Amino acid sequence: MRVRTDLNISLDGCAAPDPSSGTPDNPLGEDWSRLVAPYVATRTFQSQVLGNQGTGTTGVNDRYAKEYFEGAGAEIMGAGKFGLHMFGEDPGWRGWWGDNPPFHHPVFVLTHTAPRPSIEMEGGTVFHFVSASPAEVLAMAVDAAADGTDVRIGGGPTMVREYLKAGLIDVLHLAVTPVILGQGENLWADLRNIDLEYTAFSESGEDGVSHVTFTRRRIAR
Amino acid sequence: MRVRTDLNISLDGCAAPDPSSGTPDNPLGEDWSRLVAPYVATRTFQSQVLGNQGTGTTGVNDRYAKEYFEGAGAEIMGAGKFGLHMFGEDPGWRGWWGDNPPFHHPVFVLTHTAPRPSIEMEGGTVFHFVSASPAEVLAMAVDAAADGTDVRIGGGPTMVREYLKAGLIDVLHLAVTPVILGQGENLWADLRNIDLEYTAFSESGEDGVSHVTFTRRRIAR
Repeated sequence: MRVRTDLNISLDGCAAPDPSSGTPDNPLGEDWSRLVAPYVATRTFQSQVLGNQGTGTTGVNDRYAKEYFEGAGAEIMGAGKFGLHMFGEDPGWRGWWGDNPPFHHPVFVLTHTAPRPSIEMEGGTVFHFVSASPAEVLAMAVDAAADGTDVRIGGGPTMVREYLKAGLIDVLHLAVTPVILGQGENLWADLRNIDLEYTAFSESGEDGVSHVTFTRRRIAR
Repeated sequence: MRVRTDLNISLDGCAAPDPSSGTPDNPLGEDWSRLVAPYVATRTFQSQVLGNQGTGTTGVNDRYAKEYFEGAGAEIMGAGKFGLHMFGEDPGWRGWWGDNPPFHHPVFVLTHTAPRPSIEMEGGTVFHFVSASPAEVLAMAVDAAADGTDVRIGGGPTMVREYLKAGLIDVLHLAVTPVILGQGENLWADLRNIDLEYTAFSESGEDGVSHVTFTRRRIAR
């Protein structure tokens, strides 16, 4: 079992768009579209998330996208990723992903403001809403994940940084898209020298994307 | 003729160390050592700059290092890279590189404060000290470079940013080292969306380094 996170970041470290860049027609904004374009173009994203079978790229970027969906047995995500920041007032909100979300395993949604009952979806996804420390929620997720599967730290970047600071992430995979956003949430804020705890491996993808994977050194601690 | 720049940057965009991180024993500081370690380890850097023949890595990082030294016919560098910020009061200062510097072509040093006569070194390097706009100095360098060679924008990052903002750089090669410095001079400050003017290509090197090369689109302008 490994604790793993995968993020798309810009070359200047932005992992989430500036909320002000969104419009009614494009709520996540043009910056988000540019940041995730190579990931969205993969065959895996097209089929797993958008339901478009048989289209999309099949190179290195797609291999990483596939690993993202295949290895996990449970996920922890922030309230914003689930949509509670926008739709938390609606008790019937069930996330962005339709009746059969692409997780197919338990998902723990962090929330300090909107406790709600768990939601069982089609296809194996169950959303649990929890308010606890990063380590406590991780323990719940490890317990819920099938043997031999990973726990995924799903983002957004604020909660990924909390888990990184707590030393709880084993594998950090970054798809570094060659765009310069200059605004939005910077993954690296307050993480000086975090790389010293990891070994880094780089692999180039299509469209100028660099995949950088940090794997935690197995030091005694 | 292309106008080219090569920089080592950290994954969080730092291209020059925080001056406060230096010590008398290590004037450029530990951050600088970490940032450039994969580049310093190359066979090309070891032989061309340090004079250590027959040692050093010979992979992708070395190939990029070799291109850095091979293609250029003239260089433009900032006052700091030449050492004027530290040694500008000394009229006998001739740079950091000994009697036979590794350039072997004209080098234009930007300075607004320390006009001085040109210095002819061994091996073909001539240092000229100029105070003019980026475009004017570029014209001098193009004129001085041998036919078919590139003009190199040598850094530091402040003057690279000036040339990028002026639209004067054709090829921007970044060796992105997988370290998080969290301080120092950020290359990307005030360069939002600069990538839209370029096509990006990524190639992975050793030690987790990603080489990202931006090549200017040949649009009419």
